[in-house]
Amino acid sequence: MVKPNLQMLKSQDSHWQQGDHIKEKISCNDADNSNVGHPQCREHAKHLRRRPRLREAMEHRLASGDPWFSLEFFPPRTPNGATNLIARFDRMALGGPLFVDVTWHPSGDPAGERETSSLRIASIAAAYCGLETVPHMTCFGQSTAQVSHNLQKVKDMGLRNLMALRGDRLQEESENSHGGFHHAGDLVRHVRAEFGDYFDIGVAGYPCGHPEAKSYEEDVMYLKEKVEAGADFVITQLFFSASSFLKFLADCRRAGITVPIIPGIFPIQSYDSLRQLSRLSGLAVPVQLRLAVEKVKDDDAAIRNLGVDLAVSLCQELLTAGVSSFHFYTLNREFATETILRRLGLWQQEPRRILPWAISADARRHAEEVRPIFWAARPKSYVHRTQAWDEFPNGRWGNCASPAFGELKDYYLFYLKGRASKEQLLMEWGPKLTCEQDVWDVFTSYITGNPNRHGHKVTCTPWNDEPLSAETLDLRDWLAKLNERGVLTINSQPRVNGESSTHAAFGWGPPGGFVYQKAYLEFFTCAENVKALLLVLKRYEPRVNYHVISSQGWAVTNLPDFQSVAVTWGVFPGNEVIQPTVVDPVSFTYWKDEAFALWTERWGKIYDEDSQSRSIVSTMRNSYHLVNLVDNNFPFTSCLETILEEMFVARSAFHGVLAGNVDEADDGPDGGKETTQTPTDGNCE
Amino acid sequence: MVKPNLQMLKSQDSHWQQGDHIKEKISCNDADNSNVGHPQCREHAKHLRRRPRLREAMEHRLASGDPWFSLEFFPPRTPNGATNLIARFDRMALGGPLFVDVTWHPSGDPAGERETSSLRIASIAAAYCGLETVPHMTCFGQSTAQVSHNLQKVKDMGLRNLMALRGDRLQEESENSHGGFHHAGDLVRHVRAEFGDYFDIGVAGYPCGHPEAKSYEEDVMYLKEKVEAGADFVITQLFFSASSFLKFLADCRRAGITVPIIPGIFPIQSYDSLRQLSRLSGLAVPVQLRLAVEKVKDDDAAIRNLGVDLAVSLCQELLTAGVSSFHFYTLNREFATETILRRLGLWQQEPRRILPWAISADARRHAEEVRPIFWAARPKSYVHRTQAWDEFPNGRWGNCASPAFGELKDYYLFYLKGRASKEQLLMEWGPKLTCEQDVWDVFTSYITGNPNRHGHKVTCTPWNDEPLSAETLDLRDWLAKLNERGVLTINSQPRVNGESSTHAAFGWGPPGGFVYQKAYLEFFTCAENVKALLLVLKRYEPRVNYHVISSQGWAVTNLPDFQSVAVTWGVFPGNEVIQPTVVDPVSFTYWKDEAFALWTERWGKIYDEDSQSRSIVSTMRNSYHLVNLVDNNFPFTSCLETILEEMFVARSAFHGVLAGNVDEADDGPDGGKETTQTPTDGNCE
Repeated sequence: MVKPNLQMLKSQDSHWQQGDHIKEKISCNDADNSNVGHPQCREHAKHLRRRPRLREAMEHRLASGDPWFSLEFFPPRTPNGATNLIARFDRMALGGPLFVDVTWHPSGDPAGERETSSLRIASIAAAYCGLETVPHMTCFGQSTAQVSHNLQKVKDMGLRNLMALRGDRLQEESENSHGGFHHAGDLVRHVRAEFGDYFDIGVAGYPCGHPEAKSYEEDVMYLKEKVEAGADFVITQLFFSASSFLKFLADCRRAGITVPIIPGIFPIQSYDSLRQLSRLSGLAVPVQLRLAVEKVKDDDAAIRNLGVDLAVSLCQELLTAGVSSFHFYTLNREFATETILRRLGLWQQEPRRILPWAISADARRHAEEVRPIFWAARPKSYVHRTQAWDEFPNGRWGNCASPAFGELKDYYLFYLKGRASKEQLLMEWGPKLTCEQDVWDVFTSYITGNPNRHGHKVTCTPWNDEPLSAETLDLRDWLAKLNERGVLTINSQPRVNGESSTHAAFGWGPPGGFVYQKAYLEFFTCAENVKALLLVLKRYEPRVNYHVISSQGWAVTNLPDFQSVAVTWGVFPGNEVIQPTVVDPVSFTYWKDEAFALWTERWGKIYDEDSQSRSIVSTMRNSYHLVNLVDNNFPFTSCLETILEEMFVARSAFHGVLAGNVDEADDGPDGGKETTQTPTDGNCE
Repeated sequence: MVKPNLQMLKSQDSHWQQGDHIKEKISCNDADNSNVGHPQCREHAKHLRRRPRLREAMEHRLASGDPWFSLEFFPPRTPNGATNLIARFDRMALGGPLFVDVTWHPSGDPAGERETSSLRIASIAAAYCGLETVPHMTCFGQSTAQVSHNLQKVKDMGLRNLMALRGDRLQEESENSHGGFHHAGDLVRHVRAEFGDYFDIGVAGYPCGHPEAKSYEEDVMYLKEKVEAGADFVITQLFFSASSFLKFLADCRRAGITVPIIPGIFPIQSYDSLRQLSRLSGLAVPVQLRLAVEKVKDDDAAIRNLGVDLAVSLCQELLTAGVSSFHFYTLNREFATETILRRLGLWQQEPRRILPWAISADARRHAEEVRPIFWAARPKSYVHRTQAWDEFPNGRWGNCASPAFGELKDYYLFYLKGRASKEQLLMEWGPKLTCEQDVWDVFTSYITGNPNRHGHKVTCTPWNDEPLSAETLDLRDWLAKLNERGVLTINSQPRVNGESSTHAAFGWGPPGGFVYQKAYLEFFTCAENVKALLLVLKRYEPRVNYHVISSQGWAVTNLPDFQSVAVTWGVFPGNEVIQPTVVDPVSFTYWKDEAFALWTERWGKIYDEDSQSRSIVSTMRNSYHLVNLVDNNFPFTSCLETILEEMFVARSAFHGVLAGNVDEADDGPDGGKETTQTPTDGNCE
């Protein structure tokens, strides 16, 4: 028998170790989590697997040579600006930035609670938009206590990254300010001393030299000090030519700086940019560049195009030279940066979804693996209502998670507000409602994409801030017919039986896996329909799970109180089955408060207080029921369509109308026939 | 708008309540578990769903009219008898008893630690055989402290049921014995006073009157007292005619006794039974019965058949009268009771599996929902090694569960011992081993079912105490070829892609579900094969997960330390995805200790200490590697067969032998060709 050459078998792809050693390694050890009981261990393990730290992600991407980018934003001046910026975060997230950073405005109460404060914006980007976020922080002129307080606040917000900067010298403060923070390096040292390894720290590099530096060489040595103090990566200030950066990079490497150095790219977006550029760099703008911009200074589009062209050339030159990461100074605008990234091929066309819903980048939520489907179109509200949770369901939805659902009374919060203005909503949802069917028509227009009778497209509803998702498009015709008949759908998914995890519409998770869904439908409808539906559902036990609930809280379900049903799951190589979306009776009772309130909070309130329109909305809120249906027989054609048809038939039967008439109504173009035959309070006619 | 008639919508099938009321109910309240933190709540919820309390199960079965049975055993006199009884429990469990009960032998240290003690046997039946178990307990002549101590012990063993009896008056004790327990009712009251609702309590009923009772009527009133004291069900002593029981039942109901009353059936199994019967009942055996038995008293088979016939007639009469439950006094024998149950159609032909493995009836393990596949054929060892766990993985296999694996050094424990005697093992595994291939032949015979070269069938191996499972039969030809060539398989499952949960071989869980498996193979093989295999496996990343480990603990895997892979899962109506079987690197390192030790503990030790046979087994233990393979691509034909073929090819290549020869070897009847060409230490030739 030949003894194996154990060392020979070792490979980079596999973990090779003494088996008994694994046993010792099991007692997990998380520096910032002294409570290493069972759930924490599990979270730690999942965390390692799911979302690497920023510096690990950077190293991984740099090692693979796979190009990536990051985006810099500044805090807006007004609450409205904050709302718009959050919407921008969501859109820019689709492109797949490795991280975003938010600048620190010392004069704007950067660590305060206002919606325009630097840290507030950064924490929203992470927790609510799922972006890996790096808040900036400056130290100059601040006391040690103040800096420590701010750092603790960053940590408490679930952020694990920091861009450590000195900050501008304020005129009123002397060089020997209190606190002893003279350089960014002092801040880096302070962070490491007080918070150990908790933060991933970025620092600034100056390829064209720091305006206050005595020499370029001194500047490189100064950067080396910052890195030696504990910085994990470098983002450069802007520069005007690829060669400046490449020289700087080479000089840094020669000086022994080994951490990632990311070139900062500044797309010129307006004539005004020239001044900003000059101010930010502290450098004179090269004459050729100034002349090129001035030549088209009255043509905004031409300047933007010029800026895009210049940035694309610069990046392409760097790519050719082997640089694979780019940091964009967006100036809070989308168009130029997105255009540059698309032209470079760096904008993700089909973003990979790790889970069917966007994972929060809040470090406290790293173990989160499952959510109720109810908030699918309102993920920010879900994150908001569960922000006080200290344990997130890890793969299984326990009953215990639910009691801590926070109230949602804060519809006005900038990160929960709808994107459309009241004026736009009046156009989309109608300036005046005269009957319930006017409301049905709004739902129908939203589903079909056809303009409403005022000629406006309906791009959102109180329950859906975005247009229909790709996977719902397949259900569009059926959903349109339901809404025409007063089954007002607000959430749905088709059944999926083992599609590839890379499927364009249904895929999520790592490649090589298989994803599944149970057909799901959630809608508001009147009490008569509910009565008929419940009779029909008796014949579909136990195939179909259902919940019906009124705004007053009367509920009926065929699920036990604490039982949840997985409606989306995936099977992957080397993994347990991941089941990220569930339906359960308990969280449904919390969701219903929100779902019913949206009638009046979002829709009713766009009309005058005593108007008929607002009254119709209130009446529907009070009299309609919220229903959800799950077809458990996912390998076969869904029966939900049949059930709804049988509901219409059964309802007609209540009114002594021959069942056959309902089928005729189906074929009618307006779908209003059945309603016409059985008028009820508040309906048209 | 018509308001729904909410009460009208209420149905027995559905939970109807005020939705907001559900929120209040969430704070779960388990009488015997004051620690109602998150995991406990979850366990409670699962527990309610998975395994109802005995009295709930009884009520459910009685309400449905679905007949059921229970089995009574007594503690054996010898340790060998205990081993045999455990094996009998396993076999009788297949018939689907609702519970088993174990009698209390006051003179045999019933609450002691010996393997023949009443409580030890009862706890083994529950924890290791998965049988819902009711230990008997008598009280007469015992102190309150002693009884409380015994009850606490029952609870500590994870048993939730009790048969409360007075017990025989011992001659040496006076009527006014210490403790004040004069009647079973005193014990019932004591249990309720001290343990509240924790236990489900059974008491005895006497259809033919208690031998010491003044009258039949007094006896019924006495039973009523016991029930009013808190008993949940009644098991009757034996009776001779259906009419006795039916009259007793009617009298009890008339007296206001509403709990289940289960008739005790005593099959006459031998001439000796007559005496037992008389002693147990305290009644004279009816003359006709005595005459019938005496007529065939020298013919054991005839007596047994008579006993079966009489019991079947009695039960059929009771069934006709609407009785649907039967308690069998088995006298620790199988044949008669099983025959009666089969003839009555009560013996489960295809036992429904709640999970792919038998769930322990130990109340402390109610939340257990997932196990590593490694112990699939050694579930008792797994339960033993995890008996100290206080939290069981609930649906997800966390890394934290593993460190507490107990050592397995107790191969001699009566409930862990193999069933075959040393003599039988010598016949099956060979009285003398001369080379490693003799060992391969044993594995091959076990797989094929063909006799070994000594003409004996191989019914077990050190790793498999039972013959091949139904699902493995499909893999038999392939596995046989592997074993012939020195890939010694000890565990395997075929891939399954969404079979019905009621499928005969693969099904488990409630009906209406779909079950899945990833192909799995586990085997011992020599280091040369491992070397070749690891080369081949590089081409199957990430499709195939693997672990290779030596007895010294050198291990290689392509799974991260704390990552587990679900290899069996099921999707059911109204449920999350259940994933009861996993593969993970950490528990594999614990399993390997056991798997390697079994070579010497089970196999080597049947040979003399200095024999060549024992030496060969030891050498294999020390030089072979343990390997497991998971094919993650479950919807498609498994690639494991191809991988093993490629391994043989690669191994031949190491030896400069043309790969083609291996394919020829495949077709050979003995499969030993390759080995013949490349002899290694210890092999034949």
